[in-house]
Amino acid sequence: MKAGKRKADFPVEKVRRYLEPGPIVLVSSQWQGRANIMTLGWHTVLEFSPSLVGLMIASGNHSFEMIRRSGQCVINLPTAAMVDAVVGIGNCSGVDTDKFAAFELTAVKARHVQAPLIGQCHASFECRLHEDALVDRFNFFIFEVVKAHVAPSPKHPRTLHYSGDGAFMVAGNVISRRSMFKPEMLV
Amino acid sequence: MKAGKRKADFPVEKVRRYLEPGPIVLVSSQWQGRANIMTLGWHTVLEFSPSLVGLMIASGNHSFEMIRRSGQCVINLPTAAMVDAVVGIGNCSGVDTDKFAAFELTAVKARHVQAPLIGQCHASFECRLHEDALVDRFNFFIFEVVKAHVAPSPKHPRTLHYSGDGAFMVAGNVISRRSMFKPEMLV
Repeated sequence: MKAGKRKADFPVEKVRRYLEPGPIVLVSSQWQGRANIMTLGWHTVLEFSPSLVGLMIASGNHSFEMIRRSGQCVINLPTAAMVDAVVGIGNCSGVDTDKFAAFELTAVKARHVQAPLIGQCHASFECRLHEDALVDRFNFFIFEVVKAHVAPSPKHPRTLHYSGDGAFMVAGNVISRRSMFKPEMLV
Repeated sequence: MKAGKRKADFPVEKVRRYLEPGPIVLVSSQWQGRANIMTLGWHTVLEFSPSLVGLMIASGNHSFEMIRRSGQCVINLPTAAMVDAVVGIGNCSGVDTDKFAAFELTAVKARHVQAPLIGQCHASFECRLHEDALVDRFNFFIFEVVKAHVAPSPKHPRTLHYSGDGAFMVAGNVISRRSMFKPEMLV
């Protein structure tokens, strides 16, 4: 895997630009000195400010306890070029695999959390646990994005959208209907 | 708008095929004899069986109280060809607009809920409220999909993925990596 992409700070209240389209993401975590990565497709934006995101993290994942205990994670946005790493990461376990090493990914130190950013991803969002009321019943974590790092270009990277059974849809072409929106809807 | 598409029954435990990619959806509701539609991008799959989906419905929407009081809705999947209706629906209010009439959409009777299906959409998922513990604090509703209707083709319709500021990404091309998955991961 090539070296990491340069990133710039990005306003946390605008992370919906990257997450609302529903891409598959790579969630990195760290607990007791060990880092891990999981592939995740079940997430939603919940609020602009504070910048809240909900993640459904199945409890069978090695990352589940690491994220619950640390109360932190990083949501990383891979591009379509990373599809083989995305699949590989989702099909092995952090119990017996150092995924950063196995997939030649660069662990970059985060600013506000222990979990590392993944250097090769287009964007990385540092998260702190905001609410765990639905974790026991639904494995649903609500995180606050406390820091966002985004590669300056392209504005709309080609992203992967998982539809099950091994198939990803690729989002790429953009349709703008900006002129049809009421100004107050253009947040 | 053209007449509705023919739909077939679809297994509710497999609706992730259409919702996990993160498309913009049209949520229809009915309360006290009046139907409404809202455009929504903040949703996530939460469980295969029961088939659970979480929707963040901002409380300022006319649909919010209709859905909260009825405890029901239908999640409809529009294709890219419906982009102008999707934008129009999101930029007017059910307070003073009959959106089915205004956007020439066909209200089709659902099987298990009062809210109508939108005939022109590729798929429609009838939903009953499953859990409202996070509605007051986060406007987050957990629904169970109790009936799914899907057009038989195409298998991967071109869908709209909203990234804010009036711009939609279109998901269309499919990359399959089925052979790289462990069999148990191919649910």
